[in-house]
This record gives sequence, structure tokens and C-alpha cells, in this order.
Amino acid sequence: MTYEQLQARLRHDAALVESALTTRAAQFDSLSLLANNEQLAALKEAQDYSLMAGGKRIRPALVLEVCAVLGGECTCALPFACAVEMIHTYSLIHDDLPCMDNDDLRRGKPTSHKVFGEATAILAGDGLLTDAFGVAASHADEKKALLATRTLAAAAGSIGMVGGQMMDMRGECERYSLATLLQLHARKTGALICAAAQLGAIAAGYEPQHKEWQAITTYAQCIGLAFQVVDDILDVTADPTLLGKSKGKDTAENKTTFLTYYTVDEAREYARQLTERAIAAIEQIDQQGILCALANYLAERVF
Amino acid sequence: MTYEQLQARLRHDAALVESALTTRAAQFDSLSLLANNEQLAALKEAQDYSLMAGGKRIRPALVLEVCAVLGGECTCALPFACAVEMIHTYSLIHDDLPCMDNDDLRRGKPTSHKVFGEATAILAGDGLLTDAFGVAASHADEKKALLATRTLAAAAGSIGMVGGQMMDMRGECERYSLATLLQLHARKTGALICAAAQLGAIAAGYEPQHKEWQAITTYAQCIGLAFQVVDDILDVTADPTLLGKSKGKDTAENKTTFLTYYTVDEAREYARQLTERAIAAIEQIDQQGILCALANYLAERVF
Repeated sequence: MTYEQLQARLRHDAALVESALTTRAAQFDSLSLLANNEQLAALKEAQDYSLMAGGKRIRPALVLEVCAVLGGECTCALPFACAVEMIHTYSLIHDDLPCMDNDDLRRGKPTSHKVFGEATAILAGDGLLTDAFGVAASHADEKKALLATRTLAAAAGSIGMVGGQMMDMRGECERYSLATLLQLHARKTGALICAAAQLGAIAAGYEPQHKEWQAITTYAQCIGLAFQVVDDILDVTADPTLLGKSKGKDTAENKTTFLTYYTVDEAREYARQLTERAIAAIEQIDQQGILCALANYLAERVF
Repeated sequence: MTYEQLQARLRHDAALVESALTTRAAQFDSLSLLANNEQLAALKEAQDYSLMAGGKRIRPALVLEVCAVLGGECTCALPFACAVEMIHTYSLIHDDLPCMDNDDLRRGKPTSHKVFGEATAILAGDGLLTDAFGVAASHADEKKALLATRTLAAAAGSIGMVGGQMMDMRGECERYSLATLLQLHARKTGALICAAAQLGAIAAGYEPQHKEWQAITTYAQCIGLAFQVVDDILDVTADPTLLGKSKGKDTAENKTTFLTYYTVDEAREYARQLTERAIAAIEQIDQQGILCALANYLAERVF
């Protein structure tokens, strides 16, 4: 699969997810307009501002493409893709808050609390997180809905993404060992990326006892980590207008990153190795071309 | 059922729930100690601080007692009772934040952000909310687990509790009509109290199409509203050492409350009428004595 084909596919996936998220928003509209409720409308406006800010939509694409590669219908994975993107968006809103990472820019736009104030930003995030479980649990296949909900809660919760953010926040005060840094990223970004791939597998009818589940999980763990290594490289090398956020922020805050332990060239090599490991993990799966292309793209991206 | 019998029963329910929450905490301990992770331990400490602060545990008791009244086993409702209390606790932590209600005291103790800082308080809440869905979805009966998850997400989400908090926050700037005030409370506190009762019914094997579901829902709506009316009365009349939070806060902040529209005596009469309506709604249900006693207790409480 060529780079152009992958991009077309990712745009297609993003359009599917955005359309599904808009349908959800429209239902919200009708419910809150019915009640003529300015406050609920303001909450929704804040949620849509972040949800529709046009991120790369990598996580929902992963849900849809893993489902397709494993022989499932894309549309069957759509509620799960939306739920994952909603949880990702909530985490960005809360992470950007002044008491957390204190970021003014996200995806090239002012962050939620800069536009709507802190209280609305916190509530917008709380609402997206809660509604995400409603969306995942709404899947028409009850068995898939429940397994997806359990998987998502474990990945996003206190020993998953939230725990990772807790480690990241405190990482500003102390230098982490490489092992702790790996654990931080496995929780903070790895867990949700893994869950995205697993939700794709669930949509296609797979469960944890299947060998494909483990293959997809290893693939996702490796691309998740490679993604983070590349993030650390881009934090010091990328064009900030492309990145859509401040550059050199981690260094300025004295955070432990992969560049604390590796040179830029070594880090690039590490990302390449992780990408090869990801691709090797799924070689037994037919039609896995799109997932290989995605892994390569994530390791080679420049923003 | 006498007042003493009710109190004994509530203490019994609270002990059950606290024991189940402690078991969950112990699992967390083993997971985070295994990884020798100070940050996860700090997150858990903050969560336990609020979760174990010894609230009245009305919501989880409602889950357990509705289940029992409808013929279910108490233990079968325990995961749902824990999930509801975790969501209630997260909402208190976030509501107390400086940018929200800016409260220094909760249940007679310094609020979470006062003790642990804002970032940890936000993450403690995010983690409790997310984990709550994991706990609800972990119920051994998959059909009950899924229905409970869906019910809980709808009640706690953007058009439920989070939307209610959004209305409450903005209510400091403008005076609400009585109809809007009713809607605010139906979302902010009513929705989760309703969900608690419905989760009890789910645990006992009931679904929305059963007539008992509607009876229990009406009961919960009425006691939820009566609870809020009494809260507004207590905000101006109660002994603050009993209340465990600042007194006269709503008046000081110029919030619309039921006392904007009613005198204290009229508000007491309104709470009494709501309680009668709650009791009337469940009169067809056998063995409903405990629920009647609970409704009366909530309307007559002095803190």
C-alpha cells in the first residue's frame, strides 16, 4: 500500500468517524434544544470544539482498520471508534489544563480552557468520558458491547491512561529510569492505542483467547511506543506550525523523555525497530497491508 | 420500620459497600506495588481519601435496598452499588475544585484539591469515573452488566449529572425560573439517584419494560428532588458542624435555590409532599417498608 493510498484510507476513516460523531451531536442538539437549555448547548459547544478540531484520528482509524483486516464490517466498529476518540479528546482537554500541562495551543488552536474557561473545560471532558462509555455500550451486539466497555475502562482508568498522566505530571519533579519511562508511556498513550486495536478485534468477533488478539495487541503496543518515541523527537526537531503545539516544551520543563537516554539518531533507530516488531507481530494475519503501512507512517511522520 | 432499624440497615449497607470498595483498593494496591509505583500509589491515596471519607452512602444503599425489595440478592447488587458511589465521589471531587464551587470542606474534611493539589484531584476524579464503568461492567451476569453500564452512562453524562453541574455553575450569574431549577436538580442530583434505584432493579432482574421499573423510577425521582429541597433548607438552617460544609454558601453566591421561591415552611411542606408521592409510587410493591422509611428519613434529616 502506497503512502497516498494510506492517506486516502485515513481520510475515509476520519470522515466516517466525524460523521458518526456529528450524528451523536445532532441527537444531543435535539435533546437540549427541546429543553431550550443554553447551558447544555454551551457544554456541547465546548465538546464539539475539541472533538471536531481535526486531529489525525489515528485511534479511531486503528479501530476501523483492525476490524476490517480481521474480516469485520467497518460500520460494526463505528461506535467503538467514536468512543475511543471521545476518550482521547477528553484526555487532551484535561491534560492541557493550567494545573496539568498548562498548554495554550492544541492542534493549532487555543486549548479548551483558554476559550471556554476551566470549569467548562473540565465538565466538557467529564461529559465526553462518560458519554464514551454510553456510546461503546450502545453497540447492537451485546456481547461485543460489554467486552468493549470492559476493555476501554481498564485501558483508560486509574492503572491505565489516568495513571500514566499521573506519572507524567510528577515526572517534572524527578528523573525517571528508562524502565519507568516505558511504563509511563505504556499507560499514558499505549493503553488507549492498544484498546483501540482490541476494540477493532472485538467488533470483528474476536476475544482475548484468540491468537489474533495477542498479535493485534503486540502490534498496537509497538506502534504506540514508536509513536511516543517519534513524539519526543518531534518535540525538539519539528516545525511548530506543523506540530500545532509549542516546541521544546518537554525540555523546558525538564521532563524525562527518550532523548534523555538516546540521541535523536538512536531514537529514530529505536522507533524503526519497534515498527519492524509491530509488523512482524501481525505477519500471520491476511490482508494486513494497511496496518503495516500505518505503522511505517507513524514512525516516519514529521508532525 | 423504626428510625433505629433504618439506621442499622443503612450502617449494614454502608459496611458492605465499604468492604467491597476496600477489596477493589487492595487489588489496585497489589497491581501498583508490583510495579513499585509511587505515582499510582499517590493517585490511589487521593481516591481513597474521598471514597472512604464516610459519606451517608445513600446512593449505594438505595441500589442494595431496591434490589432486596424486588427480591434480589444484596451481593448481586454490590458491583453496581460500588460503581454508583465511585461516580458520586468523583463528582464531589470535581465540583469542589476552585474553578467550580471552590469548596474547602467536604464531609467535615479538607477537600481533595486542598490536600493533594488540583491536578491530582482532577485525575483522582477521572480515574474513579472511568473505573466505575469497569466495576459496573464487571458484573457476572452479562445482560445486567450491560444494562447497568448504559443506564449509568446516560445518568452521569452530558445530559445528566455533568449537564446539571454545568447548569448549576452558570446559575451563579443568572436567576433561574422554578421550571429550570427543577430541571437542574433532575440532572445534577436526580439522575444519579434514579440510576441508583434502577441499578438495584437491574440487579434483581428487572428491565425498563417492567411496571416495577417505572414505580421505582418515580420513587427515586421524588426522593431525589425532596433530598435537594431539604439540602436548600439545611444550607440556611443547619448546624455547620453537623453539615460538614460551609453554611449559607448558596445565599452568599446568589444562587437560585428552592428558597428563592418558597419560604422555609413552604419548602418543608413541598419536601413532605414529594415524599408522599414517592411512597405512593411503590405501594404496589411488597416489602417496600425500608424504601418508605428511607424516603421519610431523607425528608426529615437535619444534616
